[in-house]
Amino acid sequence: MQLRTTSREIRLRSRPSGWPTPENFELAEIPVRPPDDGEILVRNTHMSVDPYMRGRMSDAKSYVPPYELGEPLQGAAVGFVTASRSEIAAGTWVRHDRGWRDYATIPAKRAQIIDINIVPPSAYLGVLGMPGLTAFVGLHDIGGLKKSDIAFISSAAGAVGSVAGQLAKSHGATVIGSAGSDEKVAFLRDELGFDGAFNYKDGKPVGHLRRLAPNGIDLYFDNVGGEQLEAALSVINDYGRIVACGMISQYNEAPSAPRNLMPIVRKRLTMRGFIVFDHQARTPDFVREVAPLVKTGRIKFPESIVDGLENSPQAFIDMLLGGKYLGKVVVRLADADARSSNKSM
Amino acid sequence: MQLRTTSREIRLRSRPSGWPTPENFELAEIPVRPPDDGEILVRNTHMSVDPYMRGRMSDAKSYVPPYELGEPLQGAAVGFVTASRSEIAAGTWVRHDRGWRDYATIPAKRAQIIDINIVPPSAYLGVLGMPGLTAFVGLHDIGGLKKSDIAFISSAAGAVGSVAGQLAKSHGATVIGSAGSDEKVAFLRDELGFDGAFNYKDGKPVGHLRRLAPNGIDLYFDNVGGEQLEAALSVINDYGRIVACGMISQYNEAPSAPRNLMPIVRKRLTMRGFIVFDHQARTPDFVREVAPLVKTGRIKFPESIVDGLENSPQAFIDMLLGGKYLGKVVVRLADADARSSNKSM
Repeated sequence: MQLRTTSREIRLRSRPSGWPTPENFELAEIPVRPPDDGEILVRNTHMSVDPYMRGRMSDAKSYVPPYELGEPLQGAAVGFVTASRSEIAAGTWVRHDRGWRDYATIPAKRAQIIDINIVPPSAYLGVLGMPGLTAFVGLHDIGGLKKSDIAFISSAAGAVGSVAGQLAKSHGATVIGSAGSDEKVAFLRDELGFDGAFNYKDGKPVGHLRRLAPNGIDLYFDNVGGEQLEAALSVINDYGRIVACGMISQYNEAPSAPRNLMPIVRKRLTMRGFIVFDHQARTPDFVREVAPLVKTGRIKFPESIVDGLENSPQAFIDMLLGGKYLGKVVVRLADADARSSNKSM
Repeated sequence: MQLRTTSREIRLRSRPSGWPTPENFELAEIPVRPPDDGEILVRNTHMSVDPYMRGRMSDAKSYVPPYELGEPLQGAAVGFVTASRSEIAAGTWVRHDRGWRDYATIPAKRAQIIDINIVPPSAYLGVLGMPGLTAFVGLHDIGGLKKSDIAFISSAAGAVGSVAGQLAKSHGATVIGSAGSDEKVAFLRDELGFDGAFNYKDGKPVGHLRRLAPNGIDLYFDNVGGEQLEAALSVINDYGRIVACGMISQYNEAPSAPRNLMPIVRKRLTMRGFIVFDHQARTPDFVREVAPLVKTGRIKFPESIVDGLENSPQAFIDMLLGGKYLGKVVVRLADADARSSNKSM
């Protein structure tokens, strides 16, 4: 098999202070390293940009080690094996954690084989990937989802929120979502079947929640923190549960809300944070529940595709800023059909 | 039996806005109503002033109905029966919920008989009363106390905190407490056996916690909210638990802290609020565990006694402000030995 001899990768050039900028990243060209014993060489076709990566760009102690300056970034990617010195045959589609690069040479045991007959490869970065598992674990294990719940999901048109909302619906819950544009709001209602949705940039979130959930909410799946968390605390019912999944409003700026946590005591709330990486053992249950819903079209998986590794830093920045993209943001590094012609790559 | 024919009671004259003042209360003299069938007349010897009463002075919807303007306040009291038309004999000591008055005529079924051979009557308002049950439920049912925990308890010299700290110690936990004066800090360390204690008015709480708990804390029993909650969020370890028992710093003033809730996600924290009135069913378990510890002196119960019903509004205000009193604040309405002479009262 003839291999391309060079690959490209995105490195962390400097640590962002506040919002990341393109200057924090650099593109480098490096030789492709052929696989050693037990390794595979993967042509990445898609890579993920996820909010949690912002945390790894700081050097604070965290649940995942920080990215190293001058080293390539990491994250979920899918692709096909172009060379193998392991049991995984060339041509096999896999998912692994060495994104932000065109080619990855990795131990075969770090790769998971994916079935692209269920969904296209990119969906293994979203609805059937870490964001989908996040929604599943957050709703069930952290939030104790019940059929009778009125659930509010922020960032509901995003990678995690769009799955969380549809999954909650599939269990019979009433679901209200927020998003950052009227188009997304319409999408949530008309395409994803949400019972209600609002644009959080249009007036006070608490007003929208009072209107859309006159009987209050029972479960808040929080992806953003700040003002929307404050609004949820205002309208949540006694014994309500708050799934603290993310606080994207606070990743780059100091928060000014919530200003009052008294409802946590008075309403006997439970607010529980989690990190999906602790819950990998739930993957089989997740796939068993969600894959059929995806395959039969009951759960849709909106994606926004950005082309080219060179555009991945900007895609990451735009995803963090919000507003620009709908659904899971994926960077396409090669045509998924390239496999048939990979001998000439 | 000869009865006094008049009693006094404290009424809510106006609803406080912010901190309550003496003008929000008034003292009234009323006739004593003799018991009807099934009722008892109780000479209250001690009444409780508790932070939760501040909530009932507002007219907001809450977990307990608001006090009515012009009506006597309510709350826990102990005393002895001076006349009975029920199965409870005159002379029996009872606890009930008609405090803020010298005499109470109540249905016998609303009274609980107390054993003053275990502890003096006033202790049934504190260590063996609602504050003690609050500590017990908060530590066990809400906080999941473990022997290996490093626990931080705010307002640790108060009615709830002093029991919570000693109870956690009795289970093997390492316990750090905060209080509002150096005298109280010394008391926590020297008399109650806390492993560490600090004065929250002396510098930043987070600095004290870093010094006293260099390995972080696992459990925070929060009675105050605000700055100390923010400090706890900073030093708490992964998978830490926060028992949201009260937020006394916020009952009368808008809070400025905590300013950052990101640790809830990043550290996978659980913050859970509760109201002790939901957990009355745990009373037998509570008494079984705590009464022997109290009787043998392993749990001490500091009390601050204020004399006279006429001084109860100021005692309540001072208790809320903090700083003045140590332990459970109790208003003494009559001598506990008065029972022997109650025929002449």
